[in-house]
Amino acid sequence: MRPVAVVAAGKTPFGAFPELDLRTLAVQAGEKCLANARIPRERIESFYLGNFAGPAFVGQNHLAPYISMELGIRGVPSTRVEAACASSGSAFFHAWAEVAAGIYDLVMVAGVEKMTSQSTARTTEILASAGDLAGEIRAGSTFASLFAMIARRHMYQFGTKKAHLAAVAVKNHAAGALNPDAHMRKNITMEQALAGRPIADPLGLYDCSLISDGAAAVILAPLERAAEFTEKPVRVLGVAQASDYVALDEKEDITTFGAVRRAAEKAYRMAGVGPQDIEFAELHDCFTIAEIIATEDLGFVTRGCGGPYAMEGHTGLKGSRPINASGGLKSKGHPVGATGVAQICDLVQQIRGEAGPRQVARHSLGLAENLGGSGASCVVSILGEV
Amino acid sequence: MRPVAVVAAGKTPFGAFPELDLRTLAVQAGEKCLANARIPRERIESFYLGNFAGPAFVGQNHLAPYISMELGIRGVPSTRVEAACASSGSAFFHAWAEVAAGIYDLVMVAGVEKMTSQSTARTTEILASAGDLAGEIRAGSTFASLFAMIARRHMYQFGTKKAHLAAVAVKNHAAGALNPDAHMRKNITMEQALAGRPIADPLGLYDCSLISDGAAAVILAPLERAAEFTEKPVRVLGVAQASDYVALDEKEDITTFGAVRRAAEKAYRMAGVGPQDIEFAELHDCFTIAEIIATEDLGFVTRGCGGPYAMEGHTGLKGSRPINASGGLKSKGHPVGATGVAQICDLVQQIRGEAGPRQVARHSLGLAENLGGSGASCVVSILGEV
Repeated sequence: MRPVAVVAAGKTPFGAFPELDLRTLAVQAGEKCLANARIPRERIESFYLGNFAGPAFVGQNHLAPYISMELGIRGVPSTRVEAACASSGSAFFHAWAEVAAGIYDLVMVAGVEKMTSQSTARTTEILASAGDLAGEIRAGSTFASLFAMIARRHMYQFGTKKAHLAAVAVKNHAAGALNPDAHMRKNITMEQALAGRPIADPLGLYDCSLISDGAAAVILAPLERAAEFTEKPVRVLGVAQASDYVALDEKEDITTFGAVRRAAEKAYRMAGVGPQDIEFAELHDCFTIAEIIATEDLGFVTRGCGGPYAMEGHTGLKGSRPINASGGLKSKGHPVGATGVAQICDLVQQIRGEAGPRQVARHSLGLAENLGGSGASCVVSILGEV
Repeated sequence: MRPVAVVAAGKTPFGAFPELDLRTLAVQAGEKCLANARIPRERIESFYLGNFAGPAFVGQNHLAPYISMELGIRGVPSTRVEAACASSGSAFFHAWAEVAAGIYDLVMVAGVEKMTSQSTARTTEILASAGDLAGEIRAGSTFASLFAMIARRHMYQFGTKKAHLAAVAVKNHAAGALNPDAHMRKNITMEQALAGRPIADPLGLYDCSLISDGAAAVILAPLERAAEFTEKPVRVLGVAQASDYVALDEKEDITTFGAVRRAAEKAYRMAGVGPQDIEFAELHDCFTIAEIIATEDLGFVTRGCGGPYAMEGHTGLKGSRPINASGGLKSKGHPVGATGVAQICDLVQQIRGEAGPRQVARHSLGLAENLGGSGASCVVSILGEV
């Protein structure tokens, strides 16, 4: 396997954009990405699209060629990958594999979701299709209630408090307020976070990520050729995908995600680094409890200590290991299919030192964790400076 | 890239199975596949699923881990690929790439679709989501009407007759009548084929493939290790995926599919063979006209001559180059997401000499062509004896 670099990155702002359809969003991200490097679109050899539920949200299926052809990336293999909220993380993994294996030299991977055109009720229903429909969903669960059960159990086992959850929300809003592309650019206080109206107890409004429209794209190339395309390549040191049961009741333990642990272990091994080496990270905070558990599953802290770790400020912008300096899914927004590649864009921006007021102090090695559903899919990527 | 072999294959019968849900179908195919080789399921390192519209047909998304975990293939990367009717052909392409590149040694690729639980109207709508929703579909097109336009134009340009289309239907029903796993096991006469009630003129009932439930699975391994797993490995000589515009009105010419020509050219080059070397083939006869055009785009006959080629019997079971000895999508059935891998299973069966009364005379080199939508995706695979 040969070393691979991200040589271009681009994304749309995240938000509610009634005037932009799904394809337009994806094409805008793709154009920004192409403009970020010296790569004529005709030279892209393969195209991957991460998308969770375009067919349900906007009625359009067969989205990969629908978008690549419009981008002027014509005739090449165009593949849509779906892995719930990890759709474009998975697409990134497959694009990396194609370049690492020498199958292609220039591969674009995009992610997109257009969510705000549906009612909240229908959106909740569409998101629930990533859970076990015949079991937990038929029984009345939503993703908020599934993660509420996870949070409740984490509280019971480890003494995690609502204040720990709120600390994650406050931190991510503080970072997102500095991100011009974030969906919700506003600071919140601990008091506000704790007083958010209940969604699925113990999760309140500020524990839940946002329903957003948005798209993101990156281009991968062999590291040895990266200088042809950009002055600022970013190296992909490790990337791995893993899976687990879809239904919560089939998992051995719901306060740790096996897919995250397995993907992390592989990605660390590939990169030749350990958790202690990761300087900053973009973690999948679909709910605040998910970020807390991710810090544990990734080995940043020992099990059960994710709550205090967030509370004590270690993961803030000025902390020892900033987490979600982009604002995370909580404040930046969570257009499901775009999230995985957007995390990669955020790492690239930090590693290049281009994050402006959100720039973290140490930014030579970052990690992205992209979770699908209630943990049935996970992709962990480790990127570093060249 | 190292040589790759199919070391196991298995599929369910195709048909309408109200008692079997989507996951059960996929698991049945996976179990048959596992039983077809000496491969403990724990050794499968990666799982691909081709599925077009499970979320729309049955409401369940995030299908890859949902199925792989149930099959006991646990923790490994589990990826759903969607490329309309070419979903599992595309999944096969990506699985091949993983093994060819040396990323993994044992990869299972499955395809599944559960279509018969919806009304015909809803099914037509779901299938139409593979077309250009904002354009041709909003204007009232269905896939039958899109292929009717293609057929009409082919008739105008090349003198193709309804009898040519009917000859394809008669041939494929004759083969399917001998296939115990086919959805519609009945012979039809030319008179019946021509008298089918109109669906979208010039296409009648017998020009259209079937709405079916079904699943199929294969396991790929490096050729050099194949003997560990089976006495009857089948070599993957070439496989390629290509794309084109989704909307018919954007294509330069609707009587030839650029994606098919591009995928075929690459697959032939990889295999080191030409159209003249292909002894038999499974082609994507979603409509009879599609098989006729495929024989042209693949170079079996010159352009415009696909109709007479079928009419003259060359493509029959006893012809010089049997096409769709399985019965094809027309008679075997077309559970959309399963079709690509099912075609691979059919090639494997023939190359192994296990096709019984449908066994073709020369069976050392076969080709499968899996088309997505009205030609926006295509995967061409060439398999041969070891």
